[in-house]
Amino acid sequence: MRTVLFSAPPARWPQYRAPLARALDEAGVAARIVTRTDAPGEVDYIVYAPNGGLRDFTPFSHARAVLSLWAGVETIVTNTTLTQPLCRMVDAGLEEGMVEWVTGHVLRHHLGMDRQILGQNGVWDPVVPPLARDRRVAVLGLGALGRACAQALAALRFDVAGWSRTARALDGVDCQHGAEGLRRVLGRAEIVVLLLPLTAETENLMDAERLGWLPEGAVLINPGRGALIDDAALLAALDSGRLGHATLDVFRTEPLPPAHPFWPHPRVTVTPHIASETRPDTAARVIAENIRRAEAGEPLLFLVDRARGY
Amino acid sequence: MRTVLFSAPPARWPQYRAPLARALDEAGVAARIVTRTDAPGEVDYIVYAPNGGLRDFTPFSHARAVLSLWAGVETIVTNTTLTQPLCRMVDAGLEEGMVEWVTGHVLRHHLGMDRQILGQNGVWDPVVPPLARDRRVAVLGLGALGRACAQALAALRFDVAGWSRTARALDGVDCQHGAEGLRRVLGRAEIVVLLLPLTAETENLMDAERLGWLPEGAVLINPGRGALIDDAALLAALDSGRLGHATLDVFRTEPLPPAHPFWPHPRVTVTPHIASETRPDTAARVIAENIRRAEAGEPLLFLVDRARGY
Repeated sequence: MRTVLFSAPPARWPQYRAPLARALDEAGVAARIVTRTDAPGEVDYIVYAPNGGLRDFTPFSHARAVLSLWAGVETIVTNTTLTQPLCRMVDAGLEEGMVEWVTGHVLRHHLGMDRQILGQNGVWDPVVPPLARDRRVAVLGLGALGRACAQALAALRFDVAGWSRTARALDGVDCQHGAEGLRRVLGRAEIVVLLLPLTAETENLMDAERLGWLPEGAVLINPGRGALIDDAALLAALDSGRLGHATLDVFRTEPLPPAHPFWPHPRVTVTPHIASETRPDTAARVIAENIRRAEAGEPLLFLVDRARGY
Repeated sequence: MRTVLFSAPPARWPQYRAPLARALDEAGVAARIVTRTDAPGEVDYIVYAPNGGLRDFTPFSHARAVLSLWAGVETIVTNTTLTQPLCRMVDAGLEEGMVEWVTGHVLRHHLGMDRQILGQNGVWDPVVPPLARDRRVAVLGLGALGRACAQALAALRFDVAGWSRTARALDGVDCQHGAEGLRRVLGRAEIVVLLLPLTAETENLMDAERLGWLPEGAVLINPGRGALIDDAALLAALDSGRLGHATLDVFRTEPLPPAHPFWPHPRVTVTPHIASETRPDTAARVIAENIRRAEAGEPLLFLVDRARGY
């Protein structure tokens, strides 16, 4: 009988209790799940959300893995008390939700929908948009989420370029990498989607210089991480009219403070970190599968490279 | 040397002149294209838009086919002077544009985008939408446009049902037909897309009774034909709150008059007939191919069944 500690905000427990028990049962793992413990040395696995309060992993001397409920692990990888293997969440539900949000907002900007949604003024003013095949979209970051989004956009015939740190290949997507690749991809992108992990190299990636590489009127969509963007540089590019619009789902501080200049800006759409979230049913199966693997001595899925940071 | 009469509003001629000449040339058809003629008996083919002024086909005694620039032919099929074969436009560009508009607006309603686009009020209010797999969408009409839209939505994992007059089969789409099928499809549809041809049977298809079959809060999207909907019944269903929203691209009278109640209605989005339009490059190739076929004695593409009406 293994002990699994579920360490996440209290609101998560009712959502995960049944799916996690069911998934462990289906995976053939005999385990009891607890939300607190007086005997940390007896915990075998930790299911972990960074906003659940647990900071010091030292007492969990026998834990065999920390299984993150979040896809982004930038707040965990720097925790020096965490010496156990750490796995990211790669959840089919999270991926599907992200594809829907990204595809929806790319189509929104491609079609110029806001013109009608905000402008029901009785003026019949037909402007037919170009076809997707003539619209150049860039996806920065070709991990699980970026790849899924790039391929969904390519399936809709958008002219899609992708960029990643190291070389990748993807059907129907013009894949670039490295510093030179970034310049090429940004230089032609009418719509840019940020789906990079947050690391020391990607923080402020979209600074004044790189925003300046974008064509006049380009649209920035950020469902990745808030700190990928230099906020002041973005506001300056929007104010000058160089950038057409920014649709932002993630921010350096969340909730985004009511007084933040993004809220009233006519060229910014704030969405409240809803692009996607981990879904208990599918996420519980990922967790259970990794515990099964650990028990069987098989390699863990989605193991984080601590040096790389994701 | 064949004579082709281009009968469409004057603004179309500069758009079509070069693409049509090039497409005829590529199809190996020797033809001169005219926009008017004093010798209608010498015209071999008529390229036709219903809003170009031509009403009486009687003088074109030797015309071998009338090739519509429009996908919808409801205003032509009832013209008793038209005895020549009539072909509808089925244009790859028109189909792609329609898929983009329909997919975009289905995702817009699925994701609840208007909440953010219209509500940049500083209030952080996260509501994560369900996954597309849990969103039931219906596409009414499974012709070329309806099929393409249903399949694009199914590829995004929406739970898609399709309805047509006669039985159809389509991968990943629950296809229904006939009167009983319509009731089943509407009874479960959270988002309904109308892509039916306008005929005596489909006029006012969405009347008070059938709108009443939809689940509470359903959204209606109409890029098909304005007269598919009973406008008064739609307004009543929206006013009572039974229907959540209507996004309408086509209307009984276009441009939609500035005083029409659709414009200011908070649950209606008017888009000015921009869902899609025939693209000269691709449409010219369809026209040229049909002229080539007529010259070679081969069957015409997209021939209209005059009794059926499309």
